Amino acid sequence: MKASRQAPLGVFDSGLGGLTVVRELRKALEHEDIIYLGDTARVPYGTRSAATVERYAIGCANHLVARGVKAIIVACNTVSAVALERLRVDLDLPVLGVIEPGARAAAAATRVFKVGVLATAGTTSSGAYGRAIAACSTRIETIGQAAPLLVPLAEEGWTTGQVPRLAARRYLEPLARAGVDVVILGCTHYPLLFDIIQQEARSMIGEHVAIIDSANAVASEVADFLASRDLRCNEGALGTTRLVVTDRPKSFSETASRFLGSPVGAAEAIDL
Amino acid sequence: MKASRQAPLGVFDSGLGGLTVVRELRKALEHEDIIYLGDTARVPYGTRSAATVERYAIGCANHLVARGVKAIIVACNTVSAVALERLRVDLDLPVLGVIEPGARAAAAATRVFKVGVLATAGTTSSGAYGRAIAACSTRIETIGQAAPLLVPLAEEGWTTGQVPRLAARRYLEPLARAGVDVVILGCTHYPLLFDIIQQEARSMIGEHVAIIDSANAVASEVADFLASRDLRCNEGALGTTRLVVTDRPKSFSETASRFLGSPVGAAEAIDL
Repeated sequence: MKASRQAPLGVFDSGLGGLTVVRELRKALEHEDIIYLGDTARVPYGTRSAATVERYAIGCANHLVARGVKAIIVACNTVSAVALERLRVDLDLPVLGVIEPGARAAAAATRVFKVGVLATAGTTSSGAYGRAIAACSTRIETIGQAAPLLVPLAEEGWTTGQVPRLAARRYLEPLARAGVDVVILGCTHYPLLFDIIQQEARSMIGEHVAIIDSANAVASEVADFLASRDLRCNEGALGTTRLVVTDRPKSFSETASRFLGSPVGAAEAIDL
Repeated sequence: MKASRQAPLGVFDSGLGGLTVVRELRKALEHEDIIYLGDTARVPYGTRSAATVERYAIGCANHLVARGVKAIIVACNTVSAVALERLRVDLDLPVLGVIEPGARAAAAATRVFKVGVLATAGTTSSGAYGRAIAACSTRIETIGQAAPLLVPLAEEGWTTGQVPRLAARRYLEPLARAGVDVVILGCTHYPLLFDIIQQEARSMIGEHVAIIDSANAVASEVADFLASRDLRCNEGALGTTRLVVTDRPKSFSETASRFLGSPVGAAEAIDL
């Protein structure tokens, strides 16, 4: 099936976090329509088993396919870590994850061949970043660090002050000790804490440390991918962003404005 | 249906938190068998809509009924806040929640008729503590405060040091300003942070402040209730504790030992 350039992009995540990817997509691809599905009834995925995450991910993807999207962007590190291959096998359209772009950007940035990854427990224990980075260069060592407090801090908007600072330091400490010069923000919530993580990483590792925001890396790979397939929508009106969630549409819209950095319309509630 | 004294008690929660209630039940009722169901596939409930929480709660309760329990203890503040009445109507056996016992203990303790409640967003916005406390005395004012960071801190075992201290201070601050002399720990995770919350509450409110751990209040009400119905198991071997979860049984057993304060056996995985 050949999709049309006018068809929307489908993006999904377990909840809010993937909106940081939408924000970057909006900047890179201003004419594209985007449908964002947040599976807020079953958030978070990061603490669940691989089999459960896979089942949820298939449900989300099928819903977007039914809405006629031309490609699916899995804006969730946990799903990208454990279910991307399955989605690519099952679905008859392009599926892009967040791990490979972040891994490629990190592999290109490291000078000491040591990359640190802050992520959820699920992503960390999957070892997916290590595999994706090894696919770029087997010389690079990947050190993962689970950082469970960063998601609630980002969701609460608690992004400055001692608490996020000390939380960032706690999670960066093993990475600094291991001698990394690149830190991947391996969860789509973390870009909201970019400034404080970068500050602490500079003080603990050095001014040369590179912080990889995978949302950004994903958006530029999506733009390249669409162009290469002649699927990019380059003209016409500015694209729309439609939000769909599985629970609590009202509070979602409110928090979504913080993630997107601009006010958004009401979210539509669906059952999966 | 008249249950037998030998039948087990059924306890459920969205995840781990309710194990603090099990710990208190074990102390108060050493001969009772306990089946604990943690709905780890769908945790947390605290951020979900009332309709979703009600649907999940009915699923959990029916599973325990099928296992022949003599009473159900809802060891989850969110479910107690939004779905307790529905469970009592639907089920043909006693259902006890965590909010009423905590509210009664708080109403008995306050001297200034102002009670603060730390809880999840769901419990706070339900207003359930306010109603339960008003049922004890309409003179008492209830001030709720959502405290989203405390659950991940408790689950991670990060219960000492600056981060839990500053988080506790942030959430206690509006309660101190309102002039409460009692603070209810309105989420079953929070007793793991009891010491640090008590310390900060004493420094911000005064040495006289009472911290109500509802797990403790629930256990003594359950003991009284069973005795009053002649359902209490007073003799024989020490009771067993069986853990049942809907996802990730292995990591559950590990964290459960921290909540229960003693090692536990393997958790059984079920589908709901």
